[in-house]
Amino acid sequence: MDPEVEKQLAPLRARVKEQGDMVRQMKSDGAPEMDVKRQVQELKNRKKELEDLTLKLSPVDTFDRAKMNDLIKRRFFYDNSFAIYGGITGQYDFGPMGCDLVDNMLSEWHKHFVIQERMLKVNCSILTPENVLKASGHVDKFADYMVKDVKTGECFRLDHLIKQHFEKRMAEKDTPQAEKELMDRKITLLDGMTMEEMDKLVKEYKMNSPSTGNDLTDAVEFNLMFPISIGPTGNLKGFLRPETAQGIFVNFKRLLEYNQKRLPFACAQVGNSYRNEISPRSGLLRVREFTMAEVEHFCDPDDKSHPKFNQVADTEMILYSGCAQMDGESPKKMTIGEAVRGGLVANETLGYYMVRIQQYLFKIGIDPKKMRFRQHLSNEMAHYACDCWDAECLTSYGWIECVGCADRSAYDLSQHTKGAGVKLCVERALKEPKIVDGMVPVQDNGVIGKTFRKDAKTVQEALAALSIEEAETMEKTLSETGESELNGFKITRAMVPSFKREKKKVHVEEIIPSVIEPSFGIGRVFYCLLEHSFRVREDDDKRTYFSLPPVVAPLKVSVLPLSNKPEFIPFVTQLADQLTDLNLTVKVEDSTGSIGRRYARTDEIAIPFGVTVDFDTVNNSPHTVTVRERDSTEQVRMPIEEVPLAIRKLADGKLLWTEVTAKWPKFIAQETA
Amino acid sequence: MDPEVEKQLAPLRARVKEQGDMVRQMKSDGAPEMDVKRQVQELKNRKKELEDLTLKLSPVDTFDRAKMNDLIKRRFFYDNSFAIYGGITGQYDFGPMGCDLVDNMLSEWHKHFVIQERMLKVNCSILTPENVLKASGHVDKFADYMVKDVKTGECFRLDHLIKQHFEKRMAEKDTPQAEKELMDRKITLLDGMTMEEMDKLVKEYKMNSPSTGNDLTDAVEFNLMFPISIGPTGNLKGFLRPETAQGIFVNFKRLLEYNQKRLPFACAQVGNSYRNEISPRSGLLRVREFTMAEVEHFCDPDDKSHPKFNQVADTEMILYSGCAQMDGESPKKMTIGEAVRGGLVANETLGYYMVRIQQYLFKIGIDPKKMRFRQHLSNEMAHYACDCWDAECLTSYGWIECVGCADRSAYDLSQHTKGAGVKLCVERALKEPKIVDGMVPVQDNGVIGKTFRKDAKTVQEALAALSIEEAETMEKTLSETGESELNGFKITRAMVPSFKREKKKVHVEEIIPSVIEPSFGIGRVFYCLLEHSFRVREDDDKRTYFSLPPVVAPLKVSVLPLSNKPEFIPFVTQLADQLTDLNLTVKVEDSTGSIGRRYARTDEIAIPFGVTVDFDTVNNSPHTVTVRERDSTEQVRMPIEEVPLAIRKLADGKLLWTEVTAKWPKFIAQETA
Repeated sequence: MDPEVEKQLAPLRARVKEQGDMVRQMKSDGAPEMDVKRQVQELKNRKKELEDLTLKLSPVDTFDRAKMNDLIKRRFFYDNSFAIYGGITGQYDFGPMGCDLVDNMLSEWHKHFVIQERMLKVNCSILTPENVLKASGHVDKFADYMVKDVKTGECFRLDHLIKQHFEKRMAEKDTPQAEKELMDRKITLLDGMTMEEMDKLVKEYKMNSPSTGNDLTDAVEFNLMFPISIGPTGNLKGFLRPETAQGIFVNFKRLLEYNQKRLPFACAQVGNSYRNEISPRSGLLRVREFTMAEVEHFCDPDDKSHPKFNQVADTEMILYSGCAQMDGESPKKMTIGEAVRGGLVANETLGYYMVRIQQYLFKIGIDPKKMRFRQHLSNEMAHYACDCWDAECLTSYGWIECVGCADRSAYDLSQHTKGAGVKLCVERALKEPKIVDGMVPVQDNGVIGKTFRKDAKTVQEALAALSIEEAETMEKTLSETGESELNGFKITRAMVPSFKREKKKVHVEEIIPSVIEPSFGIGRVFYCLLEHSFRVREDDDKRTYFSLPPVVAPLKVSVLPLSNKPEFIPFVTQLADQLTDLNLTVKVEDSTGSIGRRYARTDEIAIPFGVTVDFDTVNNSPHTVTVRERDSTEQVRMPIEEVPLAIRKLADGKLLWTEVTAKWPKFIAQETA
Repeated sequence: MDPEVEKQLAPLRARVKEQGDMVRQMKSDGAPEMDVKRQVQELKNRKKELEDLTLKLSPVDTFDRAKMNDLIKRRFFYDNSFAIYGGITGQYDFGPMGCDLVDNMLSEWHKHFVIQERMLKVNCSILTPENVLKASGHVDKFADYMVKDVKTGECFRLDHLIKQHFEKRMAEKDTPQAEKELMDRKITLLDGMTMEEMDKLVKEYKMNSPSTGNDLTDAVEFNLMFPISIGPTGNLKGFLRPETAQGIFVNFKRLLEYNQKRLPFACAQVGNSYRNEISPRSGLLRVREFTMAEVEHFCDPDDKSHPKFNQVADTEMILYSGCAQMDGESPKKMTIGEAVRGGLVANETLGYYMVRIQQYLFKIGIDPKKMRFRQHLSNEMAHYACDCWDAECLTSYGWIECVGCADRSAYDLSQHTKGAGVKLCVERALKEPKIVDGMVPVQDNGVIGKTFRKDAKTVQEALAALSIEEAETMEKTLSETGESELNGFKITRAMVPSFKREKKKVHVEEIIPSVIEPSFGIGRVFYCLLEHSFRVREDDDKRTYFSLPPVVAPLKVSVLPLSNKPEFIPFVTQLADQLTDLNLTVKVEDSTGSIGRRYARTDEIAIPFGVTVDFDTVNNSPHTVTVRERDSTEQVRMPIEEVPLAIRKLADGKLLWTEVTAKWPKFIAQETA
């Protein structure tokens, strides 16, 4: 770091550390939770000051968001949905370029995770009944706060409204300086406020609807799931799923069975999820309909080692640990091996997935200089997670969380075990058999058989499988009432006249697997990728383009005839067909305009390679064409029959451009002509 | 056809033809529409009788649906969603096998259509505002009829309820024969009845709720779309889209722009659609959440030729024309060239897509003997379509429509032009310029500029582009009221003091493109594919498996160690890793059980190739393994290092099994060992 910059940052670093130390001290003293929470919020505010200044003092990034958005819109990477009907906020349609780019990202994701790691994959329903999401906690907790315009009913997210109000007031000339500073302070505090605290602010500052000036209602909680009624009766309530993970958890038993009852195994799912955002903003970063790609890795809670960890242990990563965040320090570069050995990253499996996430992001074109892993502070972490790291990408909106990687412990399977009344667990062999106290129901098979007929066997097995606690409860209930209940069957004293206490030798124990979850917000990765690959040529025209790696570029190759004379057509057609036969996506760029202008058009949509059929091609034998690479704009001259395979290999990363320029003669004429 | 069978069918054929001729006569006589409709319904009933008997007299199909469903469930191809919470009808989760199979079908679809035909592709929002679906006709017309149990509120689809009631009564011994025949007749008539006619039946036969015996409400229309409220206010109504097509239509302008304003072009979309079925049934054939793959091909309404039609003109297809259906004849085999030349299939583009659909279905494994194209009768066809053919597959549920291929003419773009007030059309160059009457507004640019500032240019251009009819309307309104409106801008007399009538030379005309639409129900194709590829071995164990082509098989190869001795492990691991490196999906089948039992396990999940590491592999050098093909169960012995590439080529269809058995020595020992 520039020492001059460090000097400016030093006091802020010290402020963070001072507060971090205080929080640690309070925690070790066992201070009341509410007090700790308040100080943690102050810690977060100081961290944010430090981060804001760090970004401000970084070398100026010339990124021009308006310019990029113009290109995105003009060449239809994506755009507002239903625009001819006035459009709709928080929803986007992906045009040919955006759609292909996302498809290619997902196809690479599938290879990188599902095929290479031999994962299972499922595709589950999006319409989800209420009881499933009640168990997962989403019905009760998946909410934001909002207020409404009392007359028009327009809704505002509470924190956004307050921030916007303060910012407006701060920009006004006649607001006293002291008041401005107070408001600035309150904005920083917003993140940690309760609904009541924020509501008080609305009233204290007499905030009104920014659209109409009307009064606002009291704040309310608003659940972010889209409610839906399944079937015609209106009695079966459900929601559009807010994440893909739950579909995997509710299928756990089938998946375990499919995997022949063995741990560990991983299951992936890619698909849409939905959040009814109160006020969507920041383009693709906060939308109502989005694609997720999630992996749930189920493993033994007492053994989170990973067989392939050693293969990646030397991978260097930028890690921003919770500790460093509390000490006001910068993120640190270290190997994942060091991080796991030192206990910074909780276990090998979590570390292995962090590496695989990083490898994927780099492969598709995320800029390594603009990526880091940030650890959740213990108070940020969902209460069930043991450790959680976010892959964050730096954009013009700041550091954006793109991929989460969490150890969710046994939380989800435990919740659904409770919610569904079905055990979601695995039998683990004991190292040596154990003798335990047992209490075995003595069954009257005659009575059971006569009562339950074809279900008799099920009942008998369920009785035999009772744990000692369950047997004790049943014995008590039977003694008191003469009846008990087991998996929906009514058990009477006559069926189980008595219980026998005895020692049992058991060879297995039941455990609930831990879940390690890498979770990708595909739209966010997509947006960061566009920002990271946006380029402006250093020439007079300042032409813009996307420098996407061939592996994800929507179109792999363009074919450009230098003239529209009829003798060019067979060359262009045949070449394009041969390229298509190799499953390469081809664009024949035969629009009017100079060849330079047409190269620029193909650069805009990120086509990495361009093949030009010129007069030399047509008039001279052997027929040769020029092949141009997008980023360097270098060209070579190549026999036309060698082109298809060379492009296929370039697109697959099996041939490098440097190898091409080494093998075939460079060419410079057209571009300048 | 068997002459004996033909003899039995002959009277039914005659009955169909008699009725078909009558319908034709009535149409040519211009008989009242209602009368024609009634006779068409009778025609359909007779057609159904003929079809039912034809299927009944066909060679017995030994297909055992229960056996197949057992395999599907046991190896988790797909199963009911949320089963641990009691499950939910009409929704299915795809397990590892089903999910991979669908992914592979879609990946092949993408290559076959999008890449090979150089289509555009989009991915549009599923949450759709009401006005879009109002314009498309879905809000008003996308409905089924239903009745409710007055006490419990349980809903029944009206036609299903009546059919079920009659079937029950017909099965009862004490129902008089004459009544049985009457009911049988009424069942056949159901398809063409109005809601009122069906409701009358419910009352006449005193039908009650089949679940509770309670009374039923009057019949009502029930819209099959899922309503949804977008955003927190509750004011923006929408639906989950019922088909993917609309997303393409509303993006037409952007897509045309992307294609540099040229026709023809095609755009594809793959994604989920939703229908809130009243009573889902028949497994995957009628569900609430399903994947569609649709293509909208936009072309000049006066030129529906296709440049590649000649390449496919000789393709033979089984066509069941509307005429043949009306004449009681069987489907006919003919080439698509004959069909288009003879006017049976409306145009080359429609015919070209029918061939491409057939090629795709055959490639993924649909049985050519169980596939046909059936033409819609003119009264079945949506009123806007000129011609429509369904690719139907024969299953244990009868002939199932899997892919529709329709010429939808200008319907959709016209509807959205009206609905959105935005012209969705294309400029077509006239062969020679035309002189037309024009009426040009004389603009006061000063007033316009001062009023609209940055929008002034937009207004000026819109005024200049007025058609003569639009100009006349504006002139009239301005004269009468002094004000008019144009694209949301208020135009005053001061801005347009007068209009000038003059001749204009025009070089282009505006046309609304025609749309040709191949539309795939992926779940239905998937189900038919499973039925068509289900096999039972002709041996004692009657083992079942799926004979899926390698291109769509979920897993391409299994690796089976013959023993669990440690010296086998390095061979198995290295081979599996090498296969994975080639992006092949691999299953290491190291479960306990005989090798025959383990081959059967891999056959069940359709793995086409199995590589066995045996004692020979481990003990002898050069190391060789056996490679087994699923359908033939033939095996060869191959050097281990040649395996990965050979399997990659086999999976891609670039190497045939016959070539493998010709090159490497056959092997027979293990399977019998």
